Amino acid sequence: MQIGMIGLGRMGGNMVRRLRDGGHEVVGFDMNPESGRDVDSLAALVAALDAPRVVWVMVPAGVPTESTIDGLKSLLDPGDIVIDGGNSKYTEDRAHAASLAEKGIRFLDCGVSGGVWGAERGYALMLGGERETFDHVRPLLETLKPEGEYGLVLAGPVGGGHFAKMVHNGIEYGMMQAFGEGFATMMRSEYIDDAAKTMVSWREGSVVASWLLDLFENATKDDPELRDVPAVANESGEAKWMVEAALELGVPTPATGAALYARQASRGGADDVLRVVTAMRAQFGGHVTKVDEIATH
Amino acid sequence: MQIGMIGLGRMGGNMVRRLRDGGHEVVGFDMNPESGRDVDSLAALVAALDAPRVVWVMVPAGVPTESTIDGLKSLLDPGDIVIDGGNSKYTEDRAHAASLAEKGIRFLDCGVSGGVWGAERGYALMLGGERETFDHVRPLLETLKPEGEYGLVLAGPVGGGHFAKMVHNGIEYGMMQAFGEGFATMMRSEYIDDAAKTMVSWREGSVVASWLLDLFENATKDDPELRDVPAVANESGEAKWMVEAALELGVPTPATGAALYARQASRGGADDVLRVVTAMRAQFGGHVTKVDEIATH
Amino acid sequence: MQIGMIGLGRMGGNMVRRLRDGGHEVVGFDMNPESGRDVDSLAALVAALDAPRVVWVMVPAGVPTESTIDGLKSLLDPGDIVIDGGNSKYTEDRAHAASLAEKGIRFLDCGVSGGVWGAERGYALMLGGERETFDHVRPLLETLKPEGEYGLVLAGPVGGGHFAKMVHNGIEYGMMQAFGEGFATMMRSEYIDDAAKTMVSWREGSVVASWLLDLFENATKDDPELRDVPAVANESGEAKWMVEAALELGVPTPATGAALYARQASRGGADDVLRVVTAMRAQFGGHVTKVDEIATH
Amino acid sequence: MQIGMIGLGRMGGNMVRRLRDGGHEVVGFDMNPESGRDVDSLAALVAALDAPRVVWVMVPAGVPTESTIDGLKSLLDPGDIVIDGGNSKYTEDRAHAASLAEKGIRFLDCGVSGGVWGAERGYALMLGGERETFDHVRPLLETLKPEGEYGLVLAGPVGGGHFAKMVHNGIEYGMMQAFGEGFATMMRSEYIDDAAKTMVSWREGSVVASWLLDLFENATKDDPELRDVPAVANESGEAKWMVEAALELGVPTPATGAALYARQASRGGADDVLRVVTAMRAQFGGHVTKVDEIATH
Repeated sequence: MQIGMIGLGRMGGNMVRRLRDGGHEVVGFDMNPESGRDVDSLAALVAALDAPRVVWVMVPAGVPTESTIDGLKSLLDPGDIVIDGGNSKYTEDRAHAASLAEKGIRFLDCGVSGGVWGAERGYALMLGGERETFDHVRPLLETLKPEGEYGLVLAGPVGGGHFAKMVHNGIEYGMMQAFGEGFATMMRSEYIDDAAKTMVSWREGSVVASWLLDLFENATKDDPELRDVPAVANESGEAKWMVEAALELGVPTPATGAALYARQASRGGADDVLRVVTAMRAQFGGHVTKVDEIATH
Repeated sequence: MQIGMIGLGRMGGNMVRRLRDGGHEVVGFDMNPESGRDVDSLAALVAALDAPRVVWVMVPAGVPTESTIDGLKSLLDPGDIVIDGGNSKYTEDRAHAASLAEKGIRFLDCGVSGGVWGAERGYALMLGGERETFDHVRPLLETLKPEGEYGLVLAGPVGGGHFAKMVHNGIEYGMMQAFGEGFATMMRSEYIDDAAKTMVSWREGSVVASWLLDLFENATKDDPELRDVPAVANESGEAKWMVEAALELGVPTPATGAALYARQASRGGADDVLRVVTAMRAQFGGHVTKVDEIATH
Repeated sequence: MQIGMIGLGRMGGNMVRRLRDGGHEVVGFDMNPESGRDVDSLAALVAALDAPRVVWVMVPAGVPTESTIDGLKSLLDPGDIVIDGGNSKYTEDRAHAASLAEKGIRFLDCGVSGGVWGAERGYALMLGGERETFDHVRPLLETLKPEGEYGLVLAGPVGGGHFAKMVHNGIEYGMMQAFGEGFATMMRSEYIDDAAKTMVSWREGSVVASWLLDLFENATKDDPELRDVPAVANESGEAKWMVEAALELGVPTPATGAALYARQASRGGADDVLRVVTAMRAQFGGHVTKVDEIATH
Repeated sequence: MQIGMIGLGRMGGNMVRRLRDGGHEVVGFDMNPESGRDVDSLAALVAALDAPRVVWVMVPAGVPTESTIDGLKSLLDPGDIVIDGGNSKYTEDRAHAASLAEKGIRFLDCGVSGGVWGAERGYALMLGGERETFDHVRPLLETLKPEGEYGLVLAGPVGGGHFAKMVHNGIEYGMMQAFGEGFATMMRSEYIDDAAKTMVSWREGSVVASWLLDLFENATKDDPELRDVPAVANESGEAKWMVEAALELGVPTPATGAALYARQASRGGADDVLRVVTAMRAQFGGHVTKVDEIATH
């Protein structure tokens, strides 16, 4: 079927290719003239599509998504469908849906997992919105998703797609932290000769077999001790939202929280905490507080 | 090749079948006469094997393993090989190896993952000990492991097999806790219609695709809200050992620890902690402390 | 000096007494006619005060505080001062201040610690707002605070008082959890005869000497094992806000988070997490999942 | 009464002064000739004391304590008393007591809190052992402890003193971490002008009033942002033992654990964990992994 794609970056661009390979007609637009776009404005994109139009927004969350949805609201007709496939927070989706509904425009939010591998493997897609709208765009989703029975779900009402993706990413944080803790423990132990090789052996037959472990093999193939990887990890926001959402729901998420905290600490977030600890220890015990002394204790 | 198997319970029994299917000659012994054992004593087992003998001990850790190894020490000859495939702690392996070495008997420790699925899928095996001994029994290990290039590793010196298995189980704890936190968050959210269906959709194309998620689908097929599963989880000891080992090595394992703590709390371990909190709150703020009042606050 | 107090509950009522004991003239109002109020309406309260008026709002956060501040906005004159001493979230203070500023009414937010003991010991007060406004009401604050040099701070701009109180409560959560963990560990150990007596001995000379420990002695005097206290703890919201604020600021707060999670788990928040863990274990290992079996394992 | 003190370092030396100020006769010995010792050998110390002798061992845990207790065993007579006031692990006390008991020598283990302030304020003392032995040395303990009714406890049988001290230190870790998390959160917030001043204001009237907060005022007097304090904290071992002991007892100690993990991470313990996280992210998402890129993201 026909679709307009807004945002032709790494994710959007790959998705366009997968959609076209699947026989769909895609009209692509991006602010960047070098993006290989088919049209050079939102208006041109809308004009190039047949009603009821389907427009997939694949731009950064926040202002870019806001302004794109505002622009589409003024251009689209009742019955058209906007899908936000970016990383918007689930709470924003309701506002977007309500705004578009004022003009009778339908809305779906879609969490997309799969990273750079999705182009080939297919993307795991989580949708939020009306069943009828979901069914209308299903041919597109079937092409984007992996082959087989998994990888596509209508998770709930508007916001449900991004909520599911947020939870998905929180789980991903916890899993990566768990693998990291295991690797780090083995790296320091005299009982283990090769931590990476040991972990990689678990790819088959073991309870921890997983796609993340498959990726771990790639990562350690040429650098089994990960010496070229910095001991710093960034956070993308979604796990933080999940921990916050769970807090509000009264659900303790200590493992997800631990994963998040480890990353924040790696970026200096715990520095003032540690200063207090060391300052107090110095007061009551005459403990070491100077950096140069610490090196020898 | 030929092997003696001691312990014909669920794990040992399944392994015997897989070994025989693979063409090996297995002499099985178990304390239990109903176990389908081939011989009725350790001495008979040893007598039935050709030197250099290979004996696999698959009995509970602690006293059963201790007494079995002691018995084998008195019966075996120099050059024979004992493999401890049970759940012994890695620190015990060195004592066992040293004791057997007094008579020239060789020792391997082997962590086994795979549960009831191993019989069919093959077991992930992690060994500790000498390379030469490992190579000698390799044909057996190749049969027990899954097909393909994964599932078998010589992780390190004596103790390395059980150390690796311990770390493996710690990772497994963290992963299950991560999935649990995600599921629980979705269960309470108005944004998600069906938490189980959403999670199951991630089996393909997503970053969290894993064998545990495959099992989750089985578990939720007939009980999508897991209403028939108690909100209590046991611990098997190995994640605890991992957290302790990591503590001694100076490696923080907050996600693994969180998983462990959640289980201990579910069994009442945190009750006295909470009593202190509530008692202190009652003192300074006149907060509610009576069980019947709590229900309405 | 003169002050109007809105809200004559436990906190407000005690504060009125302490203010009057300190020689201030207090006009009290409460929705409840049985509260011992001096006037029977907001309008009467405002009429009874000389300009520039000082009105202290001591009602529950949320709707009660909102409507009180709205009412005052319509009744007060430019230059008058409203102090929100309740448990409003720091983010709400800015909206309140901005709304009142439209009429030239000044605003301070005030976090109050001390619980039922404050009436006698004095309250620890944390203010947010303009220095000049703070200085104007300082005589009142000096009476409410404890004797001596501590217990009163202008923490920052509007919102700073409640932000400080929120952080204060987060710290309190962590401290209570720490004491609870110590007590619980001693309760289960064969090395300790009387956990409460041991903890109480730390009230002098030890690094953990603190007011919470003083309260702990009261709490355990007649119930040294806290058998009459339920193993359930409520949360008041402020520690949750602190954990969320810290997350947004990139500051890891794992101990505060642990305290919060322990309380949420005690109220069933972790039940679905545990169900997933137990369901997965049952799938891969044939582990126990029935409640009746668990009792005996 | 009369006492022999072995170990005249900072702690032992201060305790000798406090004992002498309290009217006791102290014979001091230390390996170091510059220590101001009264005698130059263990044998001379024993010879200088009247039976039944009381000897306080105040040397580092491990080999120094082991060898001192071994030496005393060979020199002392039945009925003499050895007190281990160092930082031995509670599990070692039983071995020491059993060894000394072979010659009829009595044993007490004593946890000592108070740091450099103990000399003046008195030390909080936690003892393990027989009531009769405790009563015999009580005059010495009464002098060492603070004035008043607190600061001294017979916590349990042999090992109980060090167990109690271990738990005490675990609580201390949690409390310091809690204060640190609060300070760090306020340091980054636009709502707080002066985090240290705000915290110090809580010394009176607030729920978090504590000796640690008193010390915090000292620490921040000349350095309110703690810029001269390194963002690194050491661990002394006792909190680690407490977390391990609690794990074995089935008591979750997430706040104590969080405090410990924060310190281990500050010393690089989490580096390999983070490398795994970042390496996996790079694999699935093309995320940043180079140190120089991280600086700008």
